[in-house]
Amino acid sequence: MSDPPPAALTVFPLLNIPEVRPGDDLAELLWKSMREGGLGPLAGDVLVVTQKVVSKAEGARVKLDSVQPSEQARAWAAAWGHDSRQVELVLRESKRIVKMERGLIISETKHGFICANAGIDLSNAGEEGIALLLPDDPDASARRLRERLLALTGQDLAVILSDSFGRPWRQGLTQAAIGVSGLLALLDLRGERDADGRKLHGTLIALADELADAADLVSSKTARVPAALIRGYRGPRRGKSGREGSGRDLLRPPEEDLFR
Amino acid sequence: MSDPPPAALTVFPLLNIPEVRPGDDLAELLWKSMREGGLGPLAGDVLVVTQKVVSKAEGARVKLDSVQPSEQARAWAAAWGHDSRQVELVLRESKRIVKMERGLIISETKHGFICANAGIDLSNAGEEGIALLLPDDPDASARRLRERLLALTGQDLAVILSDSFGRPWRQGLTQAAIGVSGLLALLDLRGERDADGRKLHGTLIALADELADAADLVSSKTARVPAALIRGYRGPRRGKSGREGSGRDLLRPPEEDLFR
Repeated sequence: MSDPPPAALTVFPLLNIPEVRPGDDLAELLWKSMREGGLGPLAGDVLVVTQKVVSKAEGARVKLDSVQPSEQARAWAAAWGHDSRQVELVLRESKRIVKMERGLIISETKHGFICANAGIDLSNAGEEGIALLLPDDPDASARRLRERLLALTGQDLAVILSDSFGRPWRQGLTQAAIGVSGLLALLDLRGERDADGRKLHGTLIALADELADAADLVSSKTARVPAALIRGYRGPRRGKSGREGSGRDLLRPPEEDLFR
Repeated sequence: MSDPPPAALTVFPLLNIPEVRPGDDLAELLWKSMREGGLGPLAGDVLVVTQKVVSKAEGARVKLDSVQPSEQARAWAAAWGHDSRQVELVLRESKRIVKMERGLIISETKHGFICANAGIDLSNAGEEGIALLLPDDPDASARRLRERLLALTGQDLAVILSDSFGRPWRQGLTQAAIGVSGLLALLDLRGERDADGRKLHGTLIALADELADAADLVSSKTARVPAALIRGYRGPRRGKSGREGSGRDLLRPPEEDLFR
């Protein structure tokens, strides 16, 4: 396969990844898919993996039958036609409720993400009666995948864990980079100058979220494409301080957030 | 240039676009850049253009010296160290203030976008003392660019106008598709089934925003890369009803929005 022309960025879907089960070596499955797809990988490639397969491999799952719903969960579920065990899990995984209205629960997870249903989902969980949770520490999950892929392939890839989040005001889900390793998540252009020499005020760019969105374009929610490889990305790998990025960099500090 | 392998998506920056001035034929400038970059274009390519150059070409600009600030604008500007004429423009371009706190104005523009400063920006405006406004009708701007490019190139490209929007809860700007032509903006998977055969509940995907984010990855806020061409995108061009997408499809209906 020929290289893309300079400065172009290419997004490859990782195909033929089997259903992932607890304990699977996800890095091995991803590498196999890359090899079979003729995709190298190359150092500097950015691998975007959906949270769902990471949670599956890590066993971040709960059997719904094992969940004893609280009174609050039962009342809410009854009022809105939900599964009370799932509601209970959402409340347990939340450290703060942001809105609980019209059958929707928007909360802050223990990690600090603000999203619907604490990131818990029943669809594509792989089995009936199972709920998948977000990984305990998505940055650590990304770092482990990166380290394992380095060992397998000899190449240092950047890794992003992505999840689908809704947004106030705008319709439709986009991707949120919840875990990051080997990449700057947030680009700080404050103090840089624009093409006219004018200082750019307050410009922070959510690079890792943009990469996760690019990856989502080659996935398919109804087929099994749980990862994509981005080649040719020329964005920064570290900040000026030398620090690598984190999924937490993309959490708006509470004191700057008008919509907590 | 060889085609990318099946299912891969490639994002090309459009280089060497000169400073755009009111009345310029933007489609011609974009086409020249594509030709010089060996980029065809091909039917089905998605062209993502930043709002800023569209506003420049359309003359959607205001000389700050011509703006007479209201009492409210003067008081707010004095309190927060802003330019009262710019504050006045933000208030004029807004049909509803969502939040006005800590020096920030988050409002709903006359188009229905909820964003900071009604999309008005002084950086990269091309001249001192000029503020660029959002285009009057971004969908119409996208459609005109698409029609002009069809006339010039013989190819039917999809066109997205993108702008940088902030978000509650998450740090950093991402791209919002404010105008769309020739493409489905929002994919509705409700009623489809996942890989396990389970119905996907409530899954809407903001495809045009994801495309705009992919394009932003090859731009550079400090250089002049105001457009990108996406090749190999296999997403739908029309909805089931046959209707093409619109930037307005990505506005969350007020009755479904918990954060108005």
